[in-house]
Amino acid sequence: MRAARYYDRKDIRIEDVEAPELKPGHVAIDVAWCGICGTDLHEYLEGPIFIPPAGHPHPISGESAPVTMGHEFSGTVTAVADDINDLEPGQNVVVEPYIISDDVPSDNPEVNYQLSPNMNFIGLGGRGGGLSEKVVVERRWVHPIASHVGLDQAALIEPLAVGHHAFVQSRAKAGDVAIVGGAGPIGLLTAAVLKAEGLTVYISELSEARKAKARETGVADQVFDPREVDVADEVRRLTDGAGADVGFECSSAEPVLDMLIDAVRPAGVIVNVSIWGHKPTVDLPNLVLKELQLVGTIGYAHDHPRVIELVEQGKINLEPFITGRIGLDALVSEGFDELINNTEHHVKILVDPRA
Amino acid sequence: MRAARYYDRKDIRIEDVEAPELKPGHVAIDVAWCGICGTDLHEYLEGPIFIPPAGHPHPISGESAPVTMGHEFSGTVTAVADDINDLEPGQNVVVEPYIISDDVPSDNPEVNYQLSPNMNFIGLGGRGGGLSEKVVVERRWVHPIASHVGLDQAALIEPLAVGHHAFVQSRAKAGDVAIVGGAGPIGLLTAAVLKAEGLTVYISELSEARKAKARETGVADQVFDPREVDVADEVRRLTDGAGADVGFECSSAEPVLDMLIDAVRPAGVIVNVSIWGHKPTVDLPNLVLKELQLVGTIGYAHDHPRVIELVEQGKINLEPFITGRIGLDALVSEGFDELINNTEHHVKILVDPRA
Repeated sequence: MRAARYYDRKDIRIEDVEAPELKPGHVAIDVAWCGICGTDLHEYLEGPIFIPPAGHPHPISGESAPVTMGHEFSGTVTAVADDINDLEPGQNVVVEPYIISDDVPSDNPEVNYQLSPNMNFIGLGGRGGGLSEKVVVERRWVHPIASHVGLDQAALIEPLAVGHHAFVQSRAKAGDVAIVGGAGPIGLLTAAVLKAEGLTVYISELSEARKAKARETGVADQVFDPREVDVADEVRRLTDGAGADVGFECSSAEPVLDMLIDAVRPAGVIVNVSIWGHKPTVDLPNLVLKELQLVGTIGYAHDHPRVIELVEQGKINLEPFITGRIGLDALVSEGFDELINNTEHHVKILVDPRA
Repeated sequence: MRAARYYDRKDIRIEDVEAPELKPGHVAIDVAWCGICGTDLHEYLEGPIFIPPAGHPHPISGESAPVTMGHEFSGTVTAVADDINDLEPGQNVVVEPYIISDDVPSDNPEVNYQLSPNMNFIGLGGRGGGLSEKVVVERRWVHPIASHVGLDQAALIEPLAVGHHAFVQSRAKAGDVAIVGGAGPIGLLTAAVLKAEGLTVYISELSEARKAKARETGVADQVFDPREVDVADEVRRLTDGAGADVGFECSSAEPVLDMLIDAVRPAGVIVNVSIWGHKPTVDLPNLVLKELQLVGTIGYAHDHPRVIELVEQGKINLEPFITGRIGLDALVSEGFDELINNTEHHVKILVDPRA
């Protein structure tokens, strides 16, 4: 079968590899669609980061580069191991793409398995990936999804789970007011979750294309451009002077984080959803005076069932977030390079590994 | 009566002023002891900060410099207004020194009155202060304390409440492990609360004098010097690799905050107790990957009853934290200047305004 394999920075090859074999406790899946994630771009441009470099096998998967890429994918079950009796061939599924030690009781809803030592992702740390025709995944990480949801939209369940986990970390509830800083893919999908969960959502964004996308997708009650207005003042004006209940940092930009510290009400919560490549300066003087809580979030844990429910019920329509569809051979030229050169015009480019 | 009055930066005068008059809803107190706080030093060296400058009256108190200083004080009730029937002359009390708008329902335990608009402090924002012989305080902010607690120790209830509020903000519980960064007055008093509430307490501190104080007061299970050991590694070693449950930043030093982000376990809480004079750089990359919560804390709210209980029950002995006793005339020479020049050798200098 064909697969996109990461050898090293700027060295991703579309190759023929052996199809994976079904094992006890596992599910065989024909991949339908796989999204390209910002993490994939970082691996391509600056990596290996999550990917274990050649000669340094990952302690859980035992694999190192070259590895198959792709961790945002949907597909159809083709076979299940004899010991699996709650899934069957033909069912549509999405994968929660974790590589986690068998010691971690990840079924326990109290367990933050995403924080367990040596956590990595299918499609980065080994165990195949969605940028290949077939993948075999442990039953634990396979989530069925209703057949009325398109498999293209289903490929976005994974990044949507990132947004949902950020929502959970914020401890916000229906009726609360949220300010989201940054309308890139994660900012938009976080906003989509917040809106579906009943919050009022404001977005701050500089890029014209992203502002347009935020408006067009309907995920925001209002979109502000910080060059045009003082966003924190606007949020206070719209909340009778109180400020937002929660803020979401989705930009990795220091002025955005400081704006959130300004815009969120005393004793409110700011969730840092972005990944920082450096240690930013933070307006701690103001965070302290307002008793704000700045909370980190990474990946997701126990989020997929609720996210799938929101999409199955039509509370989130993922179609507007799909801005490109390509075949596997075009992965670098029309996928990675396009996202690097025209980043503001895209939310999610999907890859069909059979095309 | 005599009072220490703040006119401007480096201009504090011991003067004769009119004694305050008893008003409805208020309590007249003869001050016994008043501590000098780091905030007072900041006002002296860099202020006015909290103190409303001359000609700019505070919106709630209506007062501006010169104002009487001192917000950490104990005393004895000398008279109560006719409408007060739950306090009587002769009772020992401490004051929770808030200036808060009458609109704020501060009796409601859900209300974060310390975060209300224009919040200020008696002894900074007006309404007299503990660095004078007498003070008249609204009943709401007067807390009785048992007569077996020395009034000298009682003057430390206020900074102890700061430490207690930080403990509450951390959501820690008995049996948890805490790492406190910095053993200045607030670090030590926070550690004292944590120890009294049943936590295991580790302290990181550079200063020899402060390390000695941390050991001598018994507030820490272990004291680490970051020049001698990697504090985060030591904390992990002592917690079977897990890390501390909670961390407390009490130093305003960036390396200490980064150490706490390293030393606290995934999904743990770091409370920022210190006041930052600048926006520090923060190890957000690590905070995000560990899903840590960085929480601000300012002042206290609803903390005094529990803090008084801990001291009355003998669970916290405040005597070792008193490192000097002076009269009002020596306030600047033996108080402020001594704390500025020999800061590491002091925890709390108490002032007797009648001496």
